[in-house]
Amino acid sequence: MSGRGGSQPDAAQVARAHAQVETDERRARVAWSRVLEHRRERTSDARAELLDEVMSIGHVEAWHRLVDGDLPRCASARAHVAGVDVDAELDRVTRLGARVVIPGDADWPTCLSHPDIEPHLLHVRGQGCLADLAARAVAVVGSRASTGYGEAIARELGAGLAHRSWTVVSGAAYGIDAAAHQGALTVDGPAIAVLPCGPDRAYPEGNRRLIDAVAERGVVITELATGTVAMRHRFLARNRIIAALGAATVVVEAGLRSGSLNTAGWAESLGRPVGAVPGPVTQMSSAGCHEWIQKTRAHLVTDTADVLALAARVGDALEQPVEQLGPARELDAMTTAQRRIHDLLRARAGRSPGVVAHELVLPVEEVLAELSVMSLQGWARQDEEGGWRRGPGPS
Amino acid sequence: MSGRGGSQPDAAQVARAHAQVETDERRARVAWSRVLEHRRERTSDARAELLDEVMSIGHVEAWHRLVDGDLPRCASARAHVAGVDVDAELDRVTRLGARVVIPGDADWPTCLSHPDIEPHLLHVRGQGCLADLAARAVAVVGSRASTGYGEAIARELGAGLAHRSWTVVSGAAYGIDAAAHQGALTVDGPAIAVLPCGPDRAYPEGNRRLIDAVAERGVVITELATGTVAMRHRFLARNRIIAALGAATVVVEAGLRSGSLNTAGWAESLGRPVGAVPGPVTQMSSAGCHEWIQKTRAHLVTDTADVLALAARVGDALEQPVEQLGPARELDAMTTAQRRIHDLLRARAGRSPGVVAHELVLPVEEVLAELSVMSLQGWARQDEEGGWRRGPGPS
Repeated sequence: MSGRGGSQPDAAQVARAHAQVETDERRARVAWSRVLEHRRERTSDARAELLDEVMSIGHVEAWHRLVDGDLPRCASARAHVAGVDVDAELDRVTRLGARVVIPGDADWPTCLSHPDIEPHLLHVRGQGCLADLAARAVAVVGSRASTGYGEAIARELGAGLAHRSWTVVSGAAYGIDAAAHQGALTVDGPAIAVLPCGPDRAYPEGNRRLIDAVAERGVVITELATGTVAMRHRFLARNRIIAALGAATVVVEAGLRSGSLNTAGWAESLGRPVGAVPGPVTQMSSAGCHEWIQKTRAHLVTDTADVLALAARVGDALEQPVEQLGPARELDAMTTAQRRIHDLLRARAGRSPGVVAHELVLPVEEVLAELSVMSLQGWARQDEEGGWRRGPGPS
Repeated sequence: MSGRGGSQPDAAQVARAHAQVETDERRARVAWSRVLEHRRERTSDARAELLDEVMSIGHVEAWHRLVDGDLPRCASARAHVAGVDVDAELDRVTRLGARVVIPGDADWPTCLSHPDIEPHLLHVRGQGCLADLAARAVAVVGSRASTGYGEAIARELGAGLAHRSWTVVSGAAYGIDAAAHQGALTVDGPAIAVLPCGPDRAYPEGNRRLIDAVAERGVVITELATGTVAMRHRFLARNRIIAALGAATVVVEAGLRSGSLNTAGWAESLGRPVGAVPGPVTQMSSAGCHEWIQKTRAHLVTDTADVLALAARVGDALEQPVEQLGPARELDAMTTAQRRIHDLLRARAGRSPGVVAHELVLPVEEVLAELSVMSLQGWARQDEEGGWRRGPGPS
């Protein structure tokens, strides 16, 4: 991406650019990741045509032809070859604690090897094996402009899927994405966050801690080169990877123009089932979900079981025994409603039962009843002003 | 229905029973309405077999054969023939301000002339022409155990349909049925209430005023003889008439075992489209709707336009100009959200914005903003305790 706007390379630069790659597939893919982003618009353009050519003849051969100016529509990419330093890029990636994974590697997820999807490479940060994590994965996405209702459902689905050893794939964005990841982390479950920026960045910056937490339990991945900043077209390109990693994609809450519907569109074009969670018709925050269900582009899903029924269509056995993930968590002792309420409470600020009830779209009486049970178990406590705060659980 | 458990008629009673009907179709149907209820269970039984025979050979001929004991499986019905007094029944109906309508009459709705549906007759009370009302009608049904959310949607749909000159058909039950009728009445629109009891009764008794109001703007109908009380099997039989009168049936809110799904089942078996309104997945009150959408037995509908799109599939032109119904109503000046809030307010008791927001599943801030606009126009006013009450509108 660096050296944007440079002129075509001279003979010395050409020689050095050839030497960067020689016959090494990994080095060729790193080199390409710095000169050509995977960005397909619907209308065919120079970039898409070039990308097709690269995929068709292979990265090594394509690199040498690019350096020699012997590829169709390659002028723009070729202007960047002089600035490519594969060793420096690999060094930057290593210093971030990340690794470069390419097709053929043991932890390359084969579900990404689709002509419209396959990235040059993935930068992978985290403890998990990407291929294993992707073998049983569901994408859970939705609006950044989410409501308490949608976030509670996303956390619930994230926790429910992870508890059954299904990996939660999302984009670490504010709102539904973050809630889905948080739900998975609540039960120490597996997760994959796909970033719309280079591996040296966190986007959004405010979710850096969440992104780091995902890396500890699963992996944080991106196809983008170091230094690349998040931009609109990169969100859209990133969405194809989220959709391709999930056996199914679930949209929890989406307005009519939510970007999460773009992810759903990718899933649809890959023939993967799409689920959408309904909500009150009085709130536009679910209007995109309703529209997709109406147009039979999405299945209506209400809970984890519904989502797994969709995901299981893609060949994986549904009724695997629930694995015990990490140490037995007392959180599991809470009912669904209690966990939703617990999610909404804060340790350092009290919330009124009315506000909690509104957020979760539950009757106030029910919230009050649950809070009194939760306070007996230490999961909630009432402060001096009468507000309810999150408690640490049984002591 | 009277004389239950009587023995088979003697010769004099047989002669009198023949004389009740002679060759008069209307009198034959009145006579039949007192000895054989339209009640089909899934398993074939004596009643269904007898009913098929009556429909097949015609009411007059069937009556005489019944009186002579010359019909299959007729013993139970025949035990009642001695008690039948057609003149007395017609007299009772007339004194109620109702009329007996049978197939062939100008105001018989032809949509009821289906072998599984056709009642012996209908008792019709009210100013409207039943056939005209049924020509453009939608059934709006749902749980008696409804929420404020569901009731607000039902009122909204009832008002929206009636405003476009579509008749709202429902069962006048508590909850969603009543809210749908109320919505239609709010805009002085057409409505049909189908009762599960005789024309001399109101069921539920607590909705008597609503039922009378429907009779003023449309019609209240029942196939049951005078004196018949509401019972479970009569709700189910009644539902077939509601479904048959609607070009489409919409379920606004229904738990998994709601009786309104029985109405939807009738619509389905008649090949009429079924719509269901989604709601929060956190509330079981919408679980039946979600299940029907999931099983593709119902289309997801969110507003009047969606419902009309369904109803229009049944041959009627959708885009008829909106007729001005009665005097121009200032209520129409309110926005959708304002009308929902207005519906929930009471003139004699204040409600807090938080409660209204929860009921309507709207953000409190939005409710507060709408209330302040509404108070300027006189649609809402705040009482001494800070609660909000319904106002009469601009003065």
